[in-house]
Parts: sequence; C-alpha cells; structure tokens
Amino acid sequence: MNELLIYFQRELPGINAFLDSEADKLNGLVKAVAKHIIGSGGKRIRPMLTLLMARAMGYDKDDYHAIACSLELLHSATLLHDDYLDDAEIRRGKAASHLVFGRTETILAGDVLLALANEMGARYGNARLSWLLAKGIMETAVGEIEEIEFSKNPSLDRDTYMEIIIGKTARLIECACRCGVTLAGGTQEQEDAAGEYGLNLGIAFQLVDDALDYASPTSETGKPEGGDLKEGKVTLPLILLMEDGDEAGSEAFLEALKDCSLTGDQCEAILGQVREGRYSEKTRDEAAAYVEKAKSCLAGFAPSEELTILGQAADFVLTRTK
Amino acid sequence: MNELLIYFQRELPGINAFLDSEADKLNGLVKAVAKHIIGSGGKRIRPMLTLLMARAMGYDKDDYHAIACSLELLHSATLLHDDYLDDAEIRRGKAASHLVFGRTETILAGDVLLALANEMGARYGNARLSWLLAKGIMETAVGEIEEIEFSKNPSLDRDTYMEIIIGKTARLIECACRCGVTLAGGTQEQEDAAGEYGLNLGIAFQLVDDALDYASPTSETGKPEGGDLKEGKVTLPLILLMEDGDEAGSEAFLEALKDCSLTGDQCEAILGQVREGRYSEKTRDEAAAYVEKAKSCLAGFAPSEELTILGQAADFVLTRTK
Repeated sequence: MNELLIYFQRELPGINAFLDSEADKLNGLVKAVAKHIIGSGGKRIRPMLTLLMARAMGYDKDDYHAIACSLELLHSATLLHDDYLDDAEIRRGKAASHLVFGRTETILAGDVLLALANEMGARYGNARLSWLLAKGIMETAVGEIEEIEFSKNPSLDRDTYMEIIIGKTARLIECACRCGVTLAGGTQEQEDAAGEYGLNLGIAFQLVDDALDYASPTSETGKPEGGDLKEGKVTLPLILLMEDGDEAGSEAFLEALKDCSLTGDQCEAILGQVREGRYSEKTRDEAAAYVEKAKSCLAGFAPSEELTILGQAADFVLTRTK
Repeated sequence: MNELLIYFQRELPGINAFLDSEADKLNGLVKAVAKHIIGSGGKRIRPMLTLLMARAMGYDKDDYHAIACSLELLHSATLLHDDYLDDAEIRRGKAASHLVFGRTETILAGDVLLALANEMGARYGNARLSWLLAKGIMETAVGEIEEIEFSKNPSLDRDTYMEIIIGKTARLIECACRCGVTLAGGTQEQEDAAGEYGLNLGIAFQLVDDALDYASPTSETGKPEGGDLKEGKVTLPLILLMEDGDEAGSEAFLEALKDCSLTGDQCEAILGQVREGRYSEKTRDEAAAYVEKAKSCLAGFAPSEELTILGQAADFVLTRTK
C-alpha cells in the first residue's frame, strides 16, 4: 500500500489547489458554499482515478486537472442538494451547508458546481470526453432520484438496492476511469476495461460505506452510527438481516422504519442484531467479490507504477475504516 | 408577420413532441414535474432560434431537435429552481411546480432536466456544440445567482441591472443562435454574428418582459400586475422612475421595497407613478434599440425564408403583450 499513499500525498495538493482556484472564481453568494463543501475533505477518489487511468495509458501531459476535478465538483454538487433534501445536519463531520449558508445559497451552489463541472470537461474540445461527462452527470442525477424514491422503502430488495448504488455512486466512478483513458487517447476496448474496473470499484466502495454506517463510531466516519437506519434508509446490512427472516421483519418495525419513527430502543435492537449476525462484515464480503472483479479488469493493461496503484486502490476500498 | 406565425405553427408540434418524448423517459418521481413545466406553455423561442439559424445557414437535416430542445429544457430547469427559491405561486398561469409536487421532486426535476439538456447536446459528438452548451449552462447558472444576489437591492443601478438580464436571459438566447450555426457547420464569423443577434434579442426580450410586468393585467400574462415590485425585485421601469428623482426614492419606500413589506397603498402609488411617467413604455423604447441592433447583425447573411423570419421575430419581441 505504500506506493498508493505516496502517490496520493504527491498528487493531492495539486488537485486540491485546482479545486480551490475554481471555487475562488465563483460569485460571492455561492463561493463560500463551494469552498465549504470542497474544503470539508472527501477522498478525491474520482480525480485520482482519472489521473491514474490516464497515466496508466502513458499520458504524460499535465493538463488533466480540469477533467479530473470536474467529477469531484459534480460529486460535491450532488452532496449539497442531497443534504438539503434529506435535512441532513452533518457532512464529513462538519455542519451541512444549508444549515450554515441557507437554502438559496446551497441550491444555487449545487447548480453552479454542476454547470462548472460540465464546463471544465468541455474545455478540452474533445467530443468523447464531453459525451462521457454528460452521460455521467445524467446517470448521477437519475441515481439521486432513484435513491430518494426507493431507498426509504422497507421492502427494498437486493436488485433495486444494487441499481440504486450503481446509479448514485458507481457510474460516476466508472465515468472517472473512462475519462482518464479517453484523455490519454486510449482505444474503446481500453476505455471499456477501465469503465468496468471503475463500476466494480464503485459498487464495492458503496457497499463498504453502507457497512461502515452500521459499524463505525461517529468519531471515525464523521457520521452517527446507524445513521442510515435512523433516517429510514435501507441498505445491504439491513436487507441481509431481513432476508434471514429475523424479527426485524415484523410489521411494526417496517412501519416505523418507513415513517422514520423508530424509537431509540428499536434502533438499538436492530443495531444489536446486525452486530450479532455480522451483517456489516457480510456486506464487506460482498464488496470483496466486486474488488476482485475490478482487479481482473486491469489484466490487459501494460505494467506501470499507476497500474500497481490501481490494484492497491481496489484493495484499499476494503480496508478503510472511515 | 405572417411568415413568422406560419413557420411557428408548422414547427412547434415537432418541438413539443420531442420535448414530451424526452420527459416521458424520465423516472417516475420527476416525470410529472417535467411534464408540468414543459406542458405549461412557454414560447419555445430558444428551440425555434436554433432551428431558424441552422436553416438560415442552409442546414437541411432533421436532426436538430436534441440541440434545439436542450436549451428549452435548461430554461425549464432554471424556472423550477427559481420558482422554488422565490416561493413563487404561479408560473405561466398555473400553480408553481413545488406547490403541486413538493420541494424534493421539484429540485431533483431541475437537476435532471439540466443534466438531460446537457446530454442531449452531447449526442452529436460535436465538441464545439458541447462547449457552447456548457458555457451557456454556466452563464445561466451564474446569471441566476446574480439575479438573486443583486436584484432585490433597491439601489440597483442600470449597469448591474443590464448585467443581470444578460446573464439570466440573453446569454442562453445567444447560445441558442450560436448552436444553430455550429450545427450547420457555419464559420466562426457567422457564429459570432448569430450570437450578437441573439444577445441583443435576448436583452430586448427581457426588457419587454419587465415592461409588461408593470403594464399587463393578470389575465394576459398569467402573472399579477406589478408582481416584480411586490416581490421587491428592481427592474428598469422602477430604475427609470427612481432616476427621475421622484418621491419613490424616499427612505421609507426603499426600506419597504427591500423587506418586501410595501403596503398595498404604497404599491398602488408606485404603479400609478410608473403609469403616469410612462416608464413601462420608456422601457419598451430601450428594447426597440436592442431590436434594431439585433436586426443589423443579420446583414451579412444570405437571403432565405428563415432570415426573413429572424427579422420578424426581432420585431415581434416588441409587439407582444404577454
């Protein structure tokens, strides 16, 4: 994992500086919101993947920042709107933007970051890049809608859950990987392999995120333990528990889940059952299978420092604890 | 004007059918919102201008719908977010979407229409087209922000007002015209001339809109008379009144305007002064100058049915009463 950490440490300052300089150019009403969401951390996975894929294809120019960072800004835009619509209070351990800056500023900042992301991708005059980005933006918007439409449904099944996490997370990570190959002038076959890697990695990433929600204390993730459950959001650990036909499936529980009216005791009981049945760990096991699939997609790529790191990045998704 | 009306009557059904078919493909949660805003009328000026410009350049293919309609969808997206943020109750004579469908559905419908607009423009695999659209989207998002930031400022001056209406209206109309020329493979010089036409037409269009707000009874425009004033929004008729140093400029009035706390009597008094000073008509006179500028931009174009109509469209902006 050493190479991965060194690479990130070397490249992240440039990516953060670019994001910051783009936010600085925004209008006063939304600049502070953009800087708040961009400055609140985040793992910069999407820009790093674009860079790694481009370099793995032998791309040696330094003009990758706009396309790489566009995906981070798009991600930030969805977080702003999502947190507002969810009435979320916390994002990455800090107060959510709409609570700090107000709804108008937050909605408009989301709009302008989406527009800026798109404009940054169009700067290259590369029609394929613009198409990939446009498709990624569309899929992410649809994924956001599906999540809100379906995920608070206590009878959510595994297939719909998978569709939701692909739409809301994995497609954009796929897009980041495809953009890297396209920037480097790779073939369609290479782009597809990179896309498959990203899609599987993205699924694994979201599965681990959903597992962590049940497993990790607030101090590590910046989110309250069992936050999804308390919000009435159904994710894989809970689906696995319900599949095992535990008492979690009782009518009263389902109703309370749907209404977000679970009592503290009900929540604790469910969290206890998830711990006992090791459903968070089982969710990680499913993620591990996707990580293996992701790594197998890299088989046809020529060896390089970046290829090694892409493999390590896939493994890292499984080991992270926040 | 006969050619203009016949042309619109011939082409509008195709444009409306395309918009409808795109909305039909959207997810259930937002489809109804999209169909509500698309189906609530609107003049389809942006798609018509893209079509007219492409045809005026000699473009004879029938694949113009996606790019032409993308600008209408983008416009619809901004209306959805604007109406929500403004707490508007009425749009085009119908209840505003957020009141009919709820805030989540409305915000997400705006997001997905913006994404869809962008995706439709990218379908052509034409990097210049994607760039124009990306720039148009960005300028519109910034214009929206500037309007909210500055327009409720009672000491708004003419320069800032012009900047606002260019950003919120004219840039997208410029973009529609540029896209038509680019689709047809026109030169940069032709694209610039078309863009200038659109920019001036867009300014004139918004000036007339702002004039109508002071002049037109609800039944014709679908908006209440003096609605901008009641919302505390400063537009040219009011700026002209204040420039003439009337009592409108008194401290108490400015404060009430800022707080949106004008009494019915204060409003009536201002509306009366605007009528008496013919400030709505004077706003139209300013619009007329921009219409002349717009028409002069067409001087270098070869004669065609569409060129005639582009000239008539500019004149029509001045004569419309709703």
